[in-house]
Amino acid sequence: MKASLSAIFLCLLMAGTVHAVEKSKGEAMFDVMQSRKSVRNFTGAPATKSALDKILRAGMMAPTARNQQPWAFVAVTDRKQLDSLAAVLPSGKILLKAGAAIIVCTEPEKAAGKSHEFAIIDASLASENILLAVEALGLGAVWTAVYPDARLMERVRSSLGIPKGVIPLNVIPVGVPTGEDKPKTKYKVEKIHWERW
Amino acid sequence: MKASLSAIFLCLLMAGTVHAVEKSKGEAMFDVMQSRKSVRNFTGAPATKSALDKILRAGMMAPTARNQQPWAFVAVTDRKQLDSLAAVLPSGKILLKAGAAIIVCTEPEKAAGKSHEFAIIDASLASENILLAVEALGLGAVWTAVYPDARLMERVRSSLGIPKGVIPLNVIPVGVPTGEDKPKTKYKVEKIHWERW
Repeated sequence: MKASLSAIFLCLLMAGTVHAVEKSKGEAMFDVMQSRKSVRNFTGAPATKSALDKILRAGMMAPTARNQQPWAFVAVTDRKQLDSLAAVLPSGKILLKAGAAIIVCTEPEKAAGKSHEFAIIDASLASENILLAVEALGLGAVWTAVYPDARLMERVRSSLGIPKGVIPLNVIPVGVPTGEDKPKTKYKVEKIHWERW
Repeated sequence: MKASLSAIFLCLLMAGTVHAVEKSKGEAMFDVMQSRKSVRNFTGAPATKSALDKILRAGMMAPTARNQQPWAFVAVTDRKQLDSLAAVLPSGKILLKAGAAIIVCTEPEKAAGKSHEFAIIDASLASENILLAVEALGLGAVWTAVYPDARLMERVRSSLGIPKGVIPLNVIPVGVPTGEDKPKTKYKVEKIHWERW
């Protein structure tokens, strides 16, 4: 009798567990989105190549107009290279304690209809996936803009050997956050227009 | 004795559960990204207002240059409005069985430095969050481009009463997927350049 009661209890507990895991599958994504923040303060710890690989895979899961995938990624982990990149960027200071940097690039020549606009949009979507993946792995990152500043694009190109037809969209420092940076609440009901503007 | 064995077993089971839920928090986000696909085939079932509200909240969790939030959203659920929008769009057919549509808009006047480019990028990031949120909720969606086609932008503006200074970036039909549409694998190792291009 005692044993069968335990068995029933166990079954109930396991059913609850499965439900919790199922629920968390959708909810966890909202949690990651909500906890994502622009991280500008890092401990100086390195970012592993396996974490970066996971993050870049997430980038390539983004939608892309007519499946053209005009994006490309430079992933920098070498301290010297990070420091020389830092030296040419206005927000370069952030890189000094980052463990890595991802530069999301895009090639209008390869975009749907060779569209400059789709090239920028596709690479932006990949960048958002990258920022979310960083958060999901417990790391931190921030989009520092390179495009559309022609001077900055030229500096990043020459620092990393990026060809002329390729646009470096951003430099995303990645690293272990100190914990100082917090997410912002940006929800505003007046941004939503139901049925018509 | 039997009771204490059961208690030990229960504790072990619960520890396993907590671990499973913890693990799924990061992993679940990758699962959502990986299973996201462009859904063009819907059952015709409506999308609830509470689901749409959740999806729009996710949109507003995106990063935005200097926190300017130049984005705005039109959410359409009314069948007549969806049909009249469908009538003016080349990919309007998709809307006929969708439960709703989200039009992600952006105002360059409100973007960081009044930059047209940042306006487009910020709204693109919000759109990617929207597409991921749709997938997380078990719904389907697809980005149908409006920007940069001037004729399409004008049609969407006049169909939904969107003011002149506001750019409708896309029309995103949202609904219950039939299951026909499958995710694509886009990972390509040659898109990654380690240390330098």
